[in-house]
Amino acid sequence: MEFDLIELIRARTAQPRGDVALGIGDDAALLNLPAGQQLVACTDTLVEGVHFPRGTAPQDLGWKSLAVNLSDLAAMGATPAWAMLALTLPHADQRFVEAFAEGFAQLARTHAVALVGGDTTRGPLSVTVSAFGFVPENRALLRSGARVNDAVFVTGTLGDAAAALRLMRDSGLGARDSINEQARAELQSRLNRPEPRIAAGLALRDVASACIDVSDGLLADLGHLCVASGAGALIEADALPFSSAMFALFNSEERRAFALGGGDDYELCFTASVDRADRLSADFARLGFGALRIGRIVAEPGVRVRDAHGNTVETSRRGWQHFAS
Amino acid sequence: MEFDLIELIRARTAQPRGDVALGIGDDAALLNLPAGQQLVACTDTLVEGVHFPRGTAPQDLGWKSLAVNLSDLAAMGATPAWAMLALTLPHADQRFVEAFAEGFAQLARTHAVALVGGDTTRGPLSVTVSAFGFVPENRALLRSGARVNDAVFVTGTLGDAAAALRLMRDSGLGARDSINEQARAELQSRLNRPEPRIAAGLALRDVASACIDVSDGLLADLGHLCVASGAGALIEADALPFSSAMFALFNSEERRAFALGGGDDYELCFTASVDRADRLSADFARLGFGALRIGRIVAEPGVRVRDAHGNTVETSRRGWQHFAS
Repeated sequence: MEFDLIELIRARTAQPRGDVALGIGDDAALLNLPAGQQLVACTDTLVEGVHFPRGTAPQDLGWKSLAVNLSDLAAMGATPAWAMLALTLPHADQRFVEAFAEGFAQLARTHAVALVGGDTTRGPLSVTVSAFGFVPENRALLRSGARVNDAVFVTGTLGDAAAALRLMRDSGLGARDSINEQARAELQSRLNRPEPRIAAGLALRDVASACIDVSDGLLADLGHLCVASGAGALIEADALPFSSAMFALFNSEERRAFALGGGDDYELCFTASVDRADRLSADFARLGFGALRIGRIVAEPGVRVRDAHGNTVETSRRGWQHFAS
Repeated sequence: MEFDLIELIRARTAQPRGDVALGIGDDAALLNLPAGQQLVACTDTLVEGVHFPRGTAPQDLGWKSLAVNLSDLAAMGATPAWAMLALTLPHADQRFVEAFAEGFAQLARTHAVALVGGDTTRGPLSVTVSAFGFVPENRALLRSGARVNDAVFVTGTLGDAAAALRLMRDSGLGARDSINEQARAELQSRLNRPEPRIAAGLALRDVASACIDVSDGLLADLGHLCVASGAGALIEADALPFSSAMFALFNSEERRAFALGGGDDYELCFTASVDRADRLSADFARLGFGALRIGRIVAEPGVRVRDAHGNTVETSRRGWQHFAS
């Protein structure tokens, strides 16, 4: 049965690439390596009830399991190439697998990613994807390059996925008029179908001094970037970017909490020298992605958030941590 | 907490390799690629209660989760290089992780494998490892190269792990004298600490016409090799290789059943042209690994087993299949 499931997924995700000498079907894949490039490799697991709610549509799970890994490649400035998929299912459910494969394949096609290996096993529902891409030698974006006074940017909008989770939990919240329904759907889509910022990562190769993807919340992830760079950051709360759906459904305090501690954003947070920062926003728009300046790197360790009056904003939520009680 | 667990594992498995430009600690690993080589990549998941019994020692689980992947690399004739580890645990248990890391690291050190990425998550116990190695261009061992009349070989001994599982289930079986205890321990070690046949795979690059690792039982895996090669196989039951522990504890019929359908052997089954076969066994011994000739490739599809009288042996067990009822 293992072979049938993998074959079914392979057929849906088939993505011809000249660098795949031997794909699924032998003991391992055989892959041709480009000259002058470094391999960028990452792996992430999604467990039902921990990383996604029970009842998540299998199409969405297929998409998201690849998206969270491509987001890591984006944060390195890499061009995606290949993926491997380890899918654990309580029982052999062909309809589930077909739908999962369809969602996975939709995103894989968008980024020309070939599924080159996999394993299907029986057990509690979880998905582990490994993703692989390339970056020219010594041009990868790292977490460790931020310097004091660098400007801090973030792509897209923050907190949408966390807001969607809140709405799912408090499903009686708010009037269910049509405007709210559209806003809810937009937030839900951000939770279930995150768009890895591959194009942004590529454009940032020659621009950013440091970069990380925001998966555990801005405070936590920018905190990692600061630690790796031996610095801290000061964030302007009023500069945080929000979607119109977020404005429609949540007040200022809620928005801020989702943005700082929510997680599941899969946006890129990056730094750039301040003399370049002023003209960067225009450049980003030309390159087809939005990025807003939200603060700057400081010498003092830690990430501090302040409001328009210069007062420090209390940030009790430090991002979602695995195994945190 | 995720970072602490991964750091703990990284520290135990630290394996300096010049080709790891950036290991654990950023969004992804950065790896330098050798010229003239192909990348060999595979992934396998072990789920508690499915692939290993509840109560398996974490050291053994750490070893085995890497071993089953290195076995796939061995079957391709690859030299191992890197691994990534996705570990899902019900709760953050430092002693478990330390022991797991120790077992993983023991095997990683043996084969100079660097752990370059990972993810720890909360959930039902399971482990997904991805392993990566290299093989010179166009010299990988494939499943698909067997030709009619090629001799079929297998390394080591078969059925030991399946026998160990049987002993665990029927724990009252047999007299518990000291000879039996040693034999039991040997079988148990084969179940918990399989030795991936890396050296054999390397030696077979210029010798074997096809190769596969025996993970789901000889019948199932040789069957895959035959399908990939468009052929069948005829196996001599009396030629199957057994350990002395197996002889001490099980009769002829039991041994045969374990060898043909048991699984978890992690030996290599390979084919070679018959004109080379006669002198191969001596060559193997010189190269430091044992391999016995157990049959030959035939035109008729399927894997048939016959006894010393030429009678076909009934083979009801077709290897252990995931999701098989």
